[in-house]
Amino acid sequence: MDPIRIDTKEHVDSLLDKYDNFLFDCDGVVWLDETLIPGMLETIKYLQDNGKGFAFITNNSSKSRNEYIGKFKKLGFEGITKDMIFPTCYAAATTVKEELKIPQGSKIWVLGDHGIEDELREQGYIPVGGSDKALDTEFHLEHELLKVDPEVKAVVVGSTKHFNYMRIASTLQYLLHDNKSLPFIGTNIDRSYPGGNGLTLPAGGSVVNFMEYTAHRDFINVGKPSTLFLDTVLKHMNFNKEKTVMIGDTLYTDIKFGNDGELGGGNGGSILVLSGGTKPHDLHKLHELDTSMIPSFIIESFGDVFKLLNL
Amino acid sequence: MDPIRIDTKEHVDSLLDKYDNFLFDCDGVVWLDETLIPGMLETIKYLQDNGKGFAFITNNSSKSRNEYIGKFKKLGFEGITKDMIFPTCYAAATTVKEELKIPQGSKIWVLGDHGIEDELREQGYIPVGGSDKALDTEFHLEHELLKVDPEVKAVVVGSTKHFNYMRIASTLQYLLHDNKSLPFIGTNIDRSYPGGNGLTLPAGGSVVNFMEYTAHRDFINVGKPSTLFLDTVLKHMNFNKEKTVMIGDTLYTDIKFGNDGELGGGNGGSILVLSGGTKPHDLHKLHELDTSMIPSFIIESFGDVFKLLNL
Repeated sequence: MDPIRIDTKEHVDSLLDKYDNFLFDCDGVVWLDETLIPGMLETIKYLQDNGKGFAFITNNSSKSRNEYIGKFKKLGFEGITKDMIFPTCYAAATTVKEELKIPQGSKIWVLGDHGIEDELREQGYIPVGGSDKALDTEFHLEHELLKVDPEVKAVVVGSTKHFNYMRIASTLQYLLHDNKSLPFIGTNIDRSYPGGNGLTLPAGGSVVNFMEYTAHRDFINVGKPSTLFLDTVLKHMNFNKEKTVMIGDTLYTDIKFGNDGELGGGNGGSILVLSGGTKPHDLHKLHELDTSMIPSFIIESFGDVFKLLNL
Repeated sequence: MDPIRIDTKEHVDSLLDKYDNFLFDCDGVVWLDETLIPGMLETIKYLQDNGKGFAFITNNSSKSRNEYIGKFKKLGFEGITKDMIFPTCYAAATTVKEELKIPQGSKIWVLGDHGIEDELREQGYIPVGGSDKALDTEFHLEHELLKVDPEVKAVVVGSTKHFNYMRIASTLQYLLHDNKSLPFIGTNIDRSYPGGNGLTLPAGGSVVNFMEYTAHRDFINVGKPSTLFLDTVLKHMNFNKEKTVMIGDTLYTDIKFGNDGELGGGNGGSILVLSGGTKPHDLHKLHELDTSMIPSFIIESFGDVFKLLNL
C-alpha cells in the first residue's frame, strides 16, 4: 500500500488520535549533527503537554544516555530523562548482561566510542580497547594490545570516528580468537548518515561491516531494526505496541523497525521523514523495496506537526 | 575431485613436466611479511635454471612494481624484473587506462598506499587523496578535501594501514558524487592475510568492502580472481594458459583465479600451499565450497619443491 502523505491539519489530528506513543530516531529527525530540526522543540512540547508518550531510539552508539541528556538540554528540550533515551551503546550493554548473561566484572573488548564504554561500565563490565590511547599509535606487530587478553568475554563494535589500523587489527584478534567463539555484538547496520554541512558521512554500521567482513563471521545486531531492541524499549517504557509508531529517516533501519515490530497494530507502524538521509527523489524507488521498508506515512519533517496543527 | 597431494619427488617431477609457467601469489607463498618462506629461493632458482616461466601476482596494492623488485632483491632473489610482477596497484592503473579509457592527465582519487599513486603516475595520471598528509588530521566538517574536485575522473580503493575517518569520509564524497557516477575500482577482495608474528591481519579487501558498504554501490574488482586480470598477465607474459598454473594460499582469490581462468587446460589450474592463510584444519571444509575454490593440487609449501627434487 502506498504511504499516506501527511500535509494537512486533519492528517495530523488523526495521527495524534491514532497513536499514544511516538518513538523517534534522532539524527535526521530531531537534529542534523548539532543543529535542531525546525519545529521539533515545539512538536515535542506539544506531545508532552498532551500526555503523549515518547522515546528516542538512535542507532548511533557514540554517546551514552547521560551525554544525550546534555545534548537535548543544549538544544533547548525540557523534561527529557535518561529512561526515555535508547542509544545502541545502551542496547549493547544490556544485551551483554541480559541476553548473553556474561558475568558482571568481565572484560569486554570495544571498537567504538566512549558511549559504549560508559554504558558497559554502568552495567558492571570493564571495557578494554575502545578509547585506550595506547591504540592511537601507528600499527606495529609487537604492540601489546595485539595479544588476546583471556579475561575478555565478548566484543562490541560500533560507531566511531576514531578508528585506525591498530584498532581494527587488535579487534580482529578477538573476533578470530578460540575459533571465533567470543560473542560479537554490532551496534548497528547503518551505512551512512546525514552529518551536517550537507554531507553524507560513514556511519557505525560501516565499521561493524568492516569487522564482519575481515573476520568472516556474523554479528548480533542490537540496533534497529532488531525486534529484540524494540521489545526492550516497549517494555522499559510500558508502551502498548498497538498505539505506538516509529518515526525515522532511514528505510532499512527505522521504517523496517516499526513495520517488523508490528507497531500500530501491524497497520501503520512507521512514519518516514524527509529531513534526514532519505530524500524526495528516493521515493521513486520505494516500490522496488521489500514491504518491510515501506513507511505507513510520510511527512516532510516531524517538526511540521506543530506548524500544521496551528494552521 | 579431491586435490592431489604433492609430497614425493615423483609428484614434483610430473608437475614440472605438466607446466611451463608458474604464477605465484606472494604473501604466504613466497614470504610472510618480511620473512622468506624456506626453500623458495632455491625453488625459484631451479625454475629459472630449467627455463620455466613465472610471474608474481599479488592482491596487495600497497607497493609498486619498483618496490617489489627491491623486496625480491633484499630477500636474495636474482633475475626478477619489473615485467614479472603484477600487484593490483598496477592492475588498477592499467584498468583506468585500458578498460575505462580515462584520458591521461586526469586526476584519480585514491584511498590506499603509495603503490597505487606510483603506478597511476607511471600510467600518466595525477593521484589525489592517497598519502596526502592533509588527510592525517582529525575529522572536521570544514576540511577542504571533503569538497569534491570536479577534475577527478575515477576512484581507486585498495590496501592501506593508513586509514582514518578523514580518508574514509572524503572518499565517500567521491563515491556518492553525481549520483554515484564516477568509476569505483577496488584492488582486491581479501578479507585478511597472514601478517607475520603468527597474526592474521585485515587485508585490502576489507577496506574496499568498507567503502562498498558505506557508499552502497558495486566496485570493479581488478584483483584475483578477476579473469580480466589473468588475461592481462597471460598476455604480458606471453604464457600459454594450457601450460600455466596458479600457486596461492587463499581459496577464494588465488585458487578461484586459476580455476575460473581455466589454467592447465581447465584440468588442474591451481596449487594450494599451506604456508600462508589456509591451514591444514581448513581442508576439512573443502567439500563445502564451490568447485571453483577447490585446488587441483595441495603442497605443504612451494619451497618443498626444491627439497623433494633433491631427495
